[in-house]
Amino acid sequence: MKHLYASTAAGLMALGLASLALAADLSPEEQIETRQAGYAFMAWNMGKIKANLEGEYNADQVRAAANVVAAIANSGMGALYGPGTDKNVGAVKTRAKPELFQNLEDVGKLARDLGTAANALAAAAATGEANAVKSAFADVGAACKACHQKYRAD
Amino acid sequence: MKHLYASTAAGLMALGLASLALAADLSPEEQIETRQAGYAFMAWNMGKIKANLEGEYNADQVRAAANVVAAIANSGMGALYGPGTDKNVGAVKTRAKPELFQNLEDVGKLARDLGTAANALAAAAATGEANAVKSAFADVGAACKACHQKYRAD
Repeated sequence: MKHLYASTAAGLMALGLASLALAADLSPEEQIETRQAGYAFMAWNMGKIKANLEGEYNADQVRAAANVVAAIANSGMGALYGPGTDKNVGAVKTRAKPELFQNLEDVGKLARDLGTAANALAAAAATGEANAVKSAFADVGAACKACHQKYRAD
Repeated sequence: MKHLYASTAAGLMALGLASLALAADLSPEEQIETRQAGYAFMAWNMGKIKANLEGEYNADQVRAAANVVAAIANSGMGALYGPGTDKNVGAVKTRAKPELFQNLEDVGKLARDLGTAANALAAAAATGEANAVKSAFADVGAACKACHQKYRAD
């Protein structure tokens, strides 16, 4: 993460928004780190929704968390699977299997499925009804798992 | 990031959504990694908006990116600055200054300012008008910088 900060985030923020490279110009290691950041942040927000479903339900927290999941799922993360990101780059490790890069059409479909499920989750969360969220949450979890089982190493 | 995946993401996904700890139960290092993930993913999306403003404008990409920035900015990241996250934890480094943890009221205000600016950016992006986005984008950048200057080490 340090390297990513040194280039992307610091370039964007510390230098007054003037020097950030185009997204397409992210190095392979930056692409790997950025996609992992997206999944990690999505996972945190999935975890909050789960905790709300199992404990006291805070509709505002669930709505905010579902918005994160939907926004990240629909952010075009395919751009972060460019050439050179199919294997570890120095200290930056990836768990993406080689099969992922050989089946981009299938991966794209799985990614769209996730986007659809995540949008449904956000819509359910906006109603504030826990039961609707519970079902939509399970669908998002299934969409995550569908890709992990095929294309992510343990 | 590896440690985060081993616990949070893998716990959520690989184990069938059954074993994720409550958000409040994230370890200090997981909190640091998760907040850095959020900022990194936000930075990637800010970078895409910047690239669109400077080059060919793709309204769909800008809308998606602005939704990410707004969702992350409003995700309650204050929960990721818990006890023990004010210093490096083993190999997990933080650039948060000690002053941040001594001025939580001011930090909260700056965070709310970011949320407000990010929501305005998402609203501008939804219109598809580049000029409105340009101004709202600058406001988000200023909100980022206001906190970095005070509370983030170089």
